[in-house]
Amino acid sequence: MTRRNDPIEALIELMARLPGLGPRSARRAVLYLIRKRAQLLQPLADAMQEVARSARECLNCGNVGTTEICEICEDTRRANGLLCVVEDVADLWAMERSGVFKGRYHVLGGTLSALEGVGPDDLRIPGLIHRLETEEITEVILALNATIDGQTTAHYIADQIGARVALSSLAQGVPIGGELDYLDDGTISAALNARKRF
Amino acid sequence: MTRRNDPIEALIELMARLPGLGPRSARRAVLYLIRKRAQLLQPLADAMQEVARSARECLNCGNVGTTEICEICEDTRRANGLLCVVEDVADLWAMERSGVFKGRYHVLGGTLSALEGVGPDDLRIPGLIHRLETEEITEVILALNATIDGQTTAHYIADQIGARVALSSLAQGVPIGGELDYLDDGTISAALNARKRF
Repeated sequence: MTRRNDPIEALIELMARLPGLGPRSARRAVLYLIRKRAQLLQPLADAMQEVARSARECLNCGNVGTTEICEICEDTRRANGLLCVVEDVADLWAMERSGVFKGRYHVLGGTLSALEGVGPDDLRIPGLIHRLETEEITEVILALNATIDGQTTAHYIADQIGARVALSSLAQGVPIGGELDYLDDGTISAALNARKRF
Repeated sequence: MTRRNDPIEALIELMARLPGLGPRSARRAVLYLIRKRAQLLQPLADAMQEVARSARECLNCGNVGTTEICEICEDTRRANGLLCVVEDVADLWAMERSGVFKGRYHVLGGTLSALEGVGPDDLRIPGLIHRLETEEITEVILALNATIDGQTTAHYIADQIGARVALSSLAQGVPIGGELDYLDDGTISAALNARKRF
């Protein structure tokens, strides 16, 4: 290759490390960026610089933002006693996009995993217990992923805090717009077990 | 949403404009970047800044690099009389990865397209004719994509320059490792027509 050690090659190698991009799509993206230098490459470089400078995790809930305590934790209208526990910030954002939940969040930062050596102290579980002791929380909603690790983590948390506060978890069943033919057996079985009177 | 007008949201919106990333994968990528701030986000911001500052198109062939004339055009060992015409820089990179071609390139910057109003002067076709007049070129290899627009462009160029120089195009046939069952009819038909004695 003639392009080793040049800035374009360096950018391609960094871009290829992003989730969802491989070497091939990183090359395409970099060529696109070079073509759109003024409209996209320069703004993107500036935006990354700004996020690298200002992004931080909320000291209270683990959400990502630009302040020590995030906007959601600061919002007194959201201090309604409901605390939604999620695995990571992407899940918090997904909940926020639905626009339905008006309480606060607690971001664990992952799930318990014996295989990967992730224990309770590697997650924000001590922080969660501390919040139950200091904030006025009436219900904890466990919105963890319906995976084995997610459900293991939910059960562990329930064991730890179930005696102090009302606990709930998201309903499982057929997704809206979902076609039975495309659903896995586990979902169909969960939807059947949790069937409701029509 | 609580995250409007903040730098993280701005970065997500810019990332979502990259080819291969949508809003969802842009969010995932930005969260990943924030987690890997020192190892990835800051280096990426710096690399983009550097490319925005230094990237330019080679005045001779249209390749992308950091100098007025690219390394390939500057390389006297590659002045072997062979000129490979490609649609865009991604195709040039693909040829270079194969490591087989040792001549020079000419990047058209697209294909002729009546539908999108792309004529010869919108591409580097005048530049190609100028190079044939000024450089010592013995053979032009038309390495355009095997699409309708690519082949239309190849025929147009052949009409324009076919009298002055030897012309060739890439062979068409079964790709290495290709399984007949997964190939389209056109490829099988081309491979059959160009069959070789075993």
